[in-house]
Amino acid sequence: MQNEYSKIQSDLSIAQAAKLLPITEVAETIGLTADDLETYGKYKGKIHFGTIKSLESRTDGKLILVTAMNPTPFGEGKSTVTIGLGDALNRLGHQTVICLREPSLGPVMGMKGGAAGGGYAQVVPMEDINLHFTGDLHAITVANNVISSLIDNHIHQGNALQIDPERITWKRAMDVNDRSLRNIVIGLGGKGNGVPREDHFEITAASEMMAIFSLAEDLLDLKEKIARTVVAYTYDLKPVTVGDLGAEGAVAVLLKDALKPNLVQTIEHTPALVHGGPFANIAHGCNSLIATKTGLKLADYTVTEAGFGADLGAEKFFNIKSRIGQLTPALTVIVATIRALKFHGGVGKRELSEENVEAIKNGFQNLMKHVETMNAFGIPFVVSLNRFVTDTEREISEFEKLCSKFNIPFAITDVWEKGGAGGIQLAERVLSIINQVEKTGSSFQPLYPSHVSLEDKMNIIAKNVYGAKGIELSPKAEKQLRDIEQNGWTNLPICMAKTQYSLSDDPKKIGRPKDFTIHIRQLKPSIGAGFIVAYTGDILTMPGLPKHPAALNMNMDGDGKVTGLF
Amino acid sequence: MQNEYSKIQSDLSIAQAAKLLPITEVAETIGLTADDLETYGKYKGKIHFGTIKSLESRTDGKLILVTAMNPTPFGEGKSTVTIGLGDALNRLGHQTVICLREPSLGPVMGMKGGAAGGGYAQVVPMEDINLHFTGDLHAITVANNVISSLIDNHIHQGNALQIDPERITWKRAMDVNDRSLRNIVIGLGGKGNGVPREDHFEITAASEMMAIFSLAEDLLDLKEKIARTVVAYTYDLKPVTVGDLGAEGAVAVLLKDALKPNLVQTIEHTPALVHGGPFANIAHGCNSLIATKTGLKLADYTVTEAGFGADLGAEKFFNIKSRIGQLTPALTVIVATIRALKFHGGVGKRELSEENVEAIKNGFQNLMKHVETMNAFGIPFVVSLNRFVTDTEREISEFEKLCSKFNIPFAITDVWEKGGAGGIQLAERVLSIINQVEKTGSSFQPLYPSHVSLEDKMNIIAKNVYGAKGIELSPKAEKQLRDIEQNGWTNLPICMAKTQYSLSDDPKKIGRPKDFTIHIRQLKPSIGAGFIVAYTGDILTMPGLPKHPAALNMNMDGDGKVTGLF
Repeated sequence: MQNEYSKIQSDLSIAQAAKLLPITEVAETIGLTADDLETYGKYKGKIHFGTIKSLESRTDGKLILVTAMNPTPFGEGKSTVTIGLGDALNRLGHQTVICLREPSLGPVMGMKGGAAGGGYAQVVPMEDINLHFTGDLHAITVANNVISSLIDNHIHQGNALQIDPERITWKRAMDVNDRSLRNIVIGLGGKGNGVPREDHFEITAASEMMAIFSLAEDLLDLKEKIARTVVAYTYDLKPVTVGDLGAEGAVAVLLKDALKPNLVQTIEHTPALVHGGPFANIAHGCNSLIATKTGLKLADYTVTEAGFGADLGAEKFFNIKSRIGQLTPALTVIVATIRALKFHGGVGKRELSEENVEAIKNGFQNLMKHVETMNAFGIPFVVSLNRFVTDTEREISEFEKLCSKFNIPFAITDVWEKGGAGGIQLAERVLSIINQVEKTGSSFQPLYPSHVSLEDKMNIIAKNVYGAKGIELSPKAEKQLRDIEQNGWTNLPICMAKTQYSLSDDPKKIGRPKDFTIHIRQLKPSIGAGFIVAYTGDILTMPGLPKHPAALNMNMDGDGKVTGLF
Repeated sequence: MQNEYSKIQSDLSIAQAAKLLPITEVAETIGLTADDLETYGKYKGKIHFGTIKSLESRTDGKLILVTAMNPTPFGEGKSTVTIGLGDALNRLGHQTVICLREPSLGPVMGMKGGAAGGGYAQVVPMEDINLHFTGDLHAITVANNVISSLIDNHIHQGNALQIDPERITWKRAMDVNDRSLRNIVIGLGGKGNGVPREDHFEITAASEMMAIFSLAEDLLDLKEKIARTVVAYTYDLKPVTVGDLGAEGAVAVLLKDALKPNLVQTIEHTPALVHGGPFANIAHGCNSLIATKTGLKLADYTVTEAGFGADLGAEKFFNIKSRIGQLTPALTVIVATIRALKFHGGVGKRELSEENVEAIKNGFQNLMKHVETMNAFGIPFVVSLNRFVTDTEREISEFEKLCSKFNIPFAITDVWEKGGAGGIQLAERVLSIINQVEKTGSSFQPLYPSHVSLEDKMNIIAKNVYGAKGIELSPKAEKQLRDIEQNGWTNLPICMAKTQYSLSDDPKKIGRPKDFTIHIRQLKPSIGAGFIVAYTGDILTMPGLPKHPAALNMNMDGDGKVTGLF
């Protein structure tokens, strides 16, 4: 998160100045002892599986999902609001756990800088979380690449399974932004150096292995998901799984420690489970299921987030994660910013810091669509305006007017600058709505049942979440759909891969586009993760580095103190 | 280590049955408190840099290097003897620290199984150490690959430094055995996807980044070594460094935690620093300098090992690591086995378990050469016969007779089966020789001074360590030598890349070959690490997987208990 709020202090300097509690003390606040934790240094811990098992009989707390309107390219501070809301609930005396995705090193070194909140609403230790943390992403990377190596070795050693080298769908992975690895040819150099074929690297967060990891209920479920993962097809088009290779044991062994949820704290010492980190465009975009479920057992309130806008993150949270994990979220917070409202009202990227009340009126339509989507899911919500220092009084008052006009519950948050204190209004709104709903009972449900056709599922999402007329399949996608149906994978939910900048599949269509069709270009079965990815455009699964990568700003002194990590 | 000693228990089951002490208690035995450690779970810790700094004024303990005769393809149990000797010294009441390389995951998943000793002479927790441990290898992998990505991105973004894409010497790395990545073409897919060029993956342990890491004195020295690392040449043949790319800060940041030495324990609770793991063929093959130096400050005796036979590991330990780190090793243990003696006496791989006294006589010549080499370095030694259950009384007595005949100090070790108790004889021998030498003073010195020519250095190693007539440079190596001289890198030591199975550069020449020449095929400057690698043959820097990879034996139950990891 770049510092748009205040030019005085960087996220890193605020995080470095924070006084952390030993993680065992943080754990105590949610009833855990030192024996429940595998500590990684003083301030990070992993929760043992035995502890998680021992919590099974407890009643779940309330689950709050933080999502957003369609973001600008700068991001709207969803993680920051998630953390600030958790801190605020804690300040109000409610036991709260925050669940977040763990950052990917690639973007940290590339464009984005850190991904652990911002300002006074951060999870700490910030450098650790943004760098190697407890090694989960590295374990996932290696697990992914051991499978690749075993596939190529299997072919090299005689190919008993008759894998077609042109039909290997499993890609290699790396947690580095590296465009040169998007399209490669491997196995060159003649006899003894493997079979030449085209291959691709994805960034680890975009890999199916990350999605599998993030949806696993426990170690055995992880191993089962890995075993069923389809990695290739034979010459006669039969799916080949990791189980066929006999590799699920080794791969699960590589992930056995990573799967334990990571416990850290916010600057205000609220416990935070930061675990799992699938991308929200080509995967389902939220932290691990095991962390969310553990949070629900440990606290009265669990605040979590899903990537990008509600059209991507929340839709998948409801239709995929909640379905697989049998979760019933209690309420959604929709993060909006004056900046994003102006952006969707037609203001160019460079003019976003100038006052423009009229644009807010137009841009509000984007927010309205997400409000309607929450109604479609039957889930109550609060809109949270995440305030920036550049917002003017007139702009904010226009926002408030519009909310009142459409009867939208909202709150203003100031969590970057004030931490939990800046989220009290939001927390109070959240609590009062949850209390009301508790009386009537939840009417939340996913938008489609598992048994309807994949085409129907895509249509339901396109119409009800994006506001499209419907979908159109490319000839390629048509053919893939038939193959998927033939393989009997129709019961799975759809994971839409779509631009985050628009409700449509065209990033230039800001606001609330109308009369558009969603173009499904291809379908990819992620059988291990348990969903079918529907691509609506070219989604990059391996980012590149910009002209001036963030890495070049970083430095370290002789004691290991880091500078230049934003 | 495969279990050749006993068929009853696997290394893993022995390790899993061991009762470990909390690592803070192990640390206490060498005067460290909980505050000196960053713990990773209960049984692993990293020692803080502040602690290491505070030890600076202490006198160094004695350094014992464990090396070996030329090994068979099965390995002769050097790590096992290192651990058993450390345990034995500890049993005799001498404060001892063991220093070992950390295992690479690639071979663990591939051929070799674990690399943490064997039987009752192991470092534990065995699974952790063999799998991700404290994440050092992953950090090194990412640090390596961030440099690669920055190089390709620099070219893609305009190539201000004028890097010649055909002259990029820095390769990508992965800690997986993966022959298909040895030779690849990257940057395919047209505009926006990087510049197409040939590239290669090395296994992390074979990367220069690993060598740099393992030779760094502290964080600032690490950053300096990274900055000076040559990664490519310009179109007009000028070296391009990581410093030229401006990336040394970010790369050092990625390694700042990894560089802290890892503390674990043996089954008998002897403290062990397991840190850094460069290969011994194309790199210098011993644990990190910072771990060795820390061991010397913490204990009266530090027992460490260097990879493969004395012609590779010990030579590099003396000429490279001891030179760079200003170490004065006190004594060398040369590990021999009846199996290796027979192998060098001409017995085929399949007949090695059959008694063959005559072969031992012939094979003894191989051991004799290493004894002479120790004399050339002016370092006292003990030969340790690492006993296997298949060894017969007559074979062992032949070995003893030969040692007596040539006046070679020796001891029989039984550490796999008996732990430290099986190393008492060796420990007593070691102590008595060190005590004798202490009176006369050390006459250890590297075989050549820094200022002699690179050609002279190679000749000195070939003649004095291998017993060759001298070296012969290929035309390619001749040209590279001139380039290296022109760049002014002549003061660096040589790192020989040679087969471990023979004193010569031909793996088939067993025993003590005579009248041979060492063929230098090419030279590669590793400026960051601080040596020039001289290749005497095709050394694979990326291993492949065998027909039945070790990974396929591994499994895990629902509680994360691992099976099939040897």
